[in-house]
Amino acid sequence: MEVKFIHHIRSLPGTELIGDDAAVIGDKIITTDMLTEGADFILAETDPLWIGRKALAVNLSDIAAMGGIPRWVFMAVALPKTGAFELAEQLLAGAKPLIDKYNLQLAGGDTNTWDGGLVISITAIGCVPKKNVFRRSGGKPGDRILVTGKLGGSILRHQFFFEPRIDEALYLNEHYEIHSAIDISDGLTLDLHRLVTESRLGATIYESQIPIAEDAITLSYQSGRSPLDHALSDGEDFELLFTLTPLEAEKLLSSQPFPLYDIGELTAETGLRMTTVTGITQTLIPKGFTH
Amino acid sequence: MEVKFIHHIRSLPGTELIGDDAAVIGDKIITTDMLTEGADFILAETDPLWIGRKALAVNLSDIAAMGGIPRWVFMAVALPKTGAFELAEQLLAGAKPLIDKYNLQLAGGDTNTWDGGLVISITAIGCVPKKNVFRRSGGKPGDRILVTGKLGGSILRHQFFFEPRIDEALYLNEHYEIHSAIDISDGLTLDLHRLVTESRLGATIYESQIPIAEDAITLSYQSGRSPLDHALSDGEDFELLFTLTPLEAEKLLSSQPFPLYDIGELTAETGLRMTTVTGITQTLIPKGFTH
Repeated sequence: MEVKFIHHIRSLPGTELIGDDAAVIGDKIITTDMLTEGADFILAETDPLWIGRKALAVNLSDIAAMGGIPRWVFMAVALPKTGAFELAEQLLAGAKPLIDKYNLQLAGGDTNTWDGGLVISITAIGCVPKKNVFRRSGGKPGDRILVTGKLGGSILRHQFFFEPRIDEALYLNEHYEIHSAIDISDGLTLDLHRLVTESRLGATIYESQIPIAEDAITLSYQSGRSPLDHALSDGEDFELLFTLTPLEAEKLLSSQPFPLYDIGELTAETGLRMTTVTGITQTLIPKGFTH
Repeated sequence: MEVKFIHHIRSLPGTELIGDDAAVIGDKIITTDMLTEGADFILAETDPLWIGRKALAVNLSDIAAMGGIPRWVFMAVALPKTGAFELAEQLLAGAKPLIDKYNLQLAGGDTNTWDGGLVISITAIGCVPKKNVFRRSGGKPGDRILVTGKLGGSILRHQFFFEPRIDEALYLNEHYEIHSAIDISDGLTLDLHRLVTESRLGATIYESQIPIAEDAITLSYQSGRSPLDHALSDGEDFELLFTLTPLEAEKLLSSQPFPLYDIGELTAETGLRMTTVTGITQTLIPKGFTH
């Protein structure tokens, strides 16, 4: 959930906003994400099952980024008139494995047919676990920055098949003091920039420690960009990026309950920097997918 | 919120659904409604301010139908690329008076641009008032059926400028024992049919008592259909239709805190019937807007 244009009216009365992946209302976490044909998927080239899965998974990733437990799903669709019913069934069938896995309830929705392309808008509601809600704004200077998986090249396949990091987030919430978190939806540097901005801090990351996905390497042959560049700025990794004290990070990294990569640290100095493999620290311009 | 295709998978495990205008989760009421260009409005012929207002108002009407207090709004939009930002601002400006009037909080959203037409999907969340949540399923045989306004011809103007019956619903919830309720979004007979189906009852309404809007009369000159036919089957009146005991109805109608019309009664016999002005009772086929 990115509320860009809504940020514009943050100053209007009655429109207070929360700079996180989801809103917290009482003991509930609420997020909404819309996928549109052409921008988020090419319908002619994509199995509708994958689209249905992705539409739900991106919302679950937002709830994971808050450390929440997803529970209820509301699904609104605008369907092209031709084959609308079959398409709707396939979208649901694609989301079904995630509904089952996380024991979700499909609690409502709105079904429309129209002359345009496919649009799916999902609102997911989760519960706030007893311990804590992760915020982008809770980072402390000196925190280690960790990510839950390798990055880059998601357009090849990962964008449809990623596993929302629900279980990882709940484990972290249960066993560690997580200071801040975000899911990498629009690219590592762009989402890290959002996190440090909300925390009023900066970050230094280490080139040698960025975990690069195989698909980032594959894609680099087609794109002419380096695998590192893909890892730094491709969107839709949907890995958790989170921060915690060096002591907590050490404990977590030594137990490795699931794949984890320490990529750098939060700094009191604002802005993003990267220390290269040759030891030079340079300014990093946030780059990624903007809606 | 009509969850037609989702009803189809009601039997799937993990997908239990609620046959109401909104879902009730704990002490919250949640509804989602999507408007699409061409089906719900003609962008070239409609002030975007009106579209923004309508997108919010239809959701508020769903919360009114449950007797709830609206509080939070999530707004996801798919915007045509050309003039996207200006359009987004106008949509919000159009919704703003309702946000102010009902003291709502715009708590999140998702903004997208794409090559298609305009789609707005809003999720509104309300609180369950202390007394009661209105359900479609709570009707009792012998209940009087009341509506909060005149019906028909909404396409001329009312569809954009109707006032969601929030205040009326809260008043009714506070002072009366409402057995069942629905908002008339797809036509009187269609929505009455939904209510009696959920209540496992039927209804008889009286032709002479159907409140006909002036616009239904105006429209009849263009359409060749009778004003009554417009009142019975036009969509988007967004009046409350509710039922209560004859004794409660009598008390309410004699105090008339706001416009109210008694149009008939719930019956143990299923199906819809209308008693004509000539005293003949005939079967009424549910007719209205289907998505």
